[in-house]
Amino acid sequence: MYTSSTNIRVHYALTDQMGVVYHGNYAQFYEIGRTEALRQIGFTYKSIEAMGVMLIVTDMHIRFLRPAKYDDLLTVTITLKELPAHHKIIFDGAIYNEQKELLNTGVVTLYFMNAQTMSRAELPKEIREKLQPYFETT
Amino acid sequence: MYTSSTNIRVHYALTDQMGVVYHGNYAQFYEIGRTEALRQIGFTYKSIEAMGVMLIVTDMHIRFLRPAKYDDLLTVTITLKELPAHHKIIFDGAIYNEQKELLNTGVVTLYFMNAQTMSRAELPKEIREKLQPYFETT
Amino acid sequence: MYTSSTNIRVHYALTDQMGVVYHGNYAQFYEIGRTEALRQIGFTYKSIEAMGVMLIVTDMHIRFLRPAKYDDLLTVTITLKELPAHHKIIFDGAIYNEQKELLNTGVVTLYFMNAQTMSRAELPKEIREKLQPYFETT
Amino acid sequence: MYTSSTNIRVHYALTDQMGVVYHGNYAQFYEIGRTEALRQIGFTYKSIEAMGVMLIVTDMHIRFLRPAKYDDLLTVTITLKELPAHHKIIFDGAIYNEQKELLNTGVVTLYFMNAQTMSRAELPKEIREKLQPYFETT
Repeated sequence: MYTSSTNIRVHYALTDQMGVVYHGNYAQFYEIGRTEALRQIGFTYKSIEAMGVMLIVTDMHIRFLRPAKYDDLLTVTITLKELPAHHKIIFDGAIYNEQKELLNTGVVTLYFMNAQTMSRAELPKEIREKLQPYFETT
Repeated sequence: MYTSSTNIRVHYALTDQMGVVYHGNYAQFYEIGRTEALRQIGFTYKSIEAMGVMLIVTDMHIRFLRPAKYDDLLTVTITLKELPAHHKIIFDGAIYNEQKELLNTGVVTLYFMNAQTMSRAELPKEIREKLQPYFETT
Repeated sequence: MYTSSTNIRVHYALTDQMGVVYHGNYAQFYEIGRTEALRQIGFTYKSIEAMGVMLIVTDMHIRFLRPAKYDDLLTVTITLKELPAHHKIIFDGAIYNEQKELLNTGVVTLYFMNAQTMSRAELPKEIREKLQPYFETT
Repeated sequence: MYTSSTNIRVHYALTDQMGVVYHGNYAQFYEIGRTEALRQIGFTYKSIEAMGVMLIVTDMHIRFLRPAKYDDLLTVTITLKELPAHHKIIFDGAIYNEQKELLNTGVVTLYFMNAQTMSRAELPKEIREKLQPYFETT
């Protein structure tokens, strides 16, 4: 299992007239979480694109429990429960406020795609090697 | 069953550098679809708020099949498969491009909330009466 | 002078917790206004890109008088006061609500760029010919 | 003169299909810059609202020189050239990339408003006292 955590400050543009973060904006927060999860093991999304691989979101499921508010300092946690076997990678996410309350959970599935052929691709070997140690059982 | 359909033109701000609509923006399209579905039976979201009732998104599940592109004229269909029994209302959505290709499906669950007490509320009677005929079996 | 007008419905995502449209979102409204202004004389932005020309925003100046609100049906007017002499085109915009109140004005300057060389380009001849009649004095 | 500086990482949602940050998104960056400028002297926007005062954007003028790109780590500088005399406060902003290239400048004018009467208000005394030392000449 690999877990990563990132902080995000809620700015004004992200709120709506209900006085909370607009529900559609959490997709961005989970995307930032995924990007930082990859950066923490040494990869930028740019570096993955340079390997000729794209990541396409194919499924997003968010369950909303409590709203985030303006100026909240959120924590986004992203967990890989399994090392991707093939083209599919599933990021289990959760967002907390500063009081450690769970605001919502988001499970986002992406496919690795060959950027040229636009057909399904494998998890790049370089990333697999970095992730492997987190999934070794003893 | 009640079904409604709305057109949305994709403007530049909604695209991302992959050259397609950013996946997080479909939440907005489904919201526009719900709003217009309600307007078509005679209710604005404002008029619902005036009844002292708020609608809170509690679950959103989107499955992405094909991307929408800049300047596409999309059709969002919203279907109520069941008349809400209590506080929960489920909108089944789908988005198509002009070639009638299915781009993605989105199931969004909302709760009716009493705006003052912030506790769960019933579907307002006025809306139930308007929707009832669509769910009558013979 | 060429003037065009477009309607935009304010959806929930565009509001902020002040209960009005977030000020940064008007850039989108003016962009939609420009796109529809071009469409009304027979050009899509896509068709312009197909001519090998890009339009880059170089200056945007918005003066805010009154806020737009959720579900308002706005009218965006876009005026070309002069036929572009060279690479620069200036769109004078204004946004009104249904009560015909002026909400804000926005002057946006764009440059035509050669998409390959990324150097300044001329207004494409096809567009000039369509616009010419609006600027003829008698 | 009071100057403040803040870093912002460009995430995917902020790009458009030109492969750069959508021009309308810089309003958000300048807003984040203003918020952090206030935080650095000890005020959150929330704490200002708690004083019964709102800040309304009345004018925004952005000049675009170079585009920001995905994953760029931007620096937003915000400068107050003058201590606000009355209800008007002018924030002079500039955004730089990691190569210290100037990407764009943005001058944003806001009015302090009494949140109850919605009439123009003064710069709150507490903020004036904090800012005063930066504007003292010797």
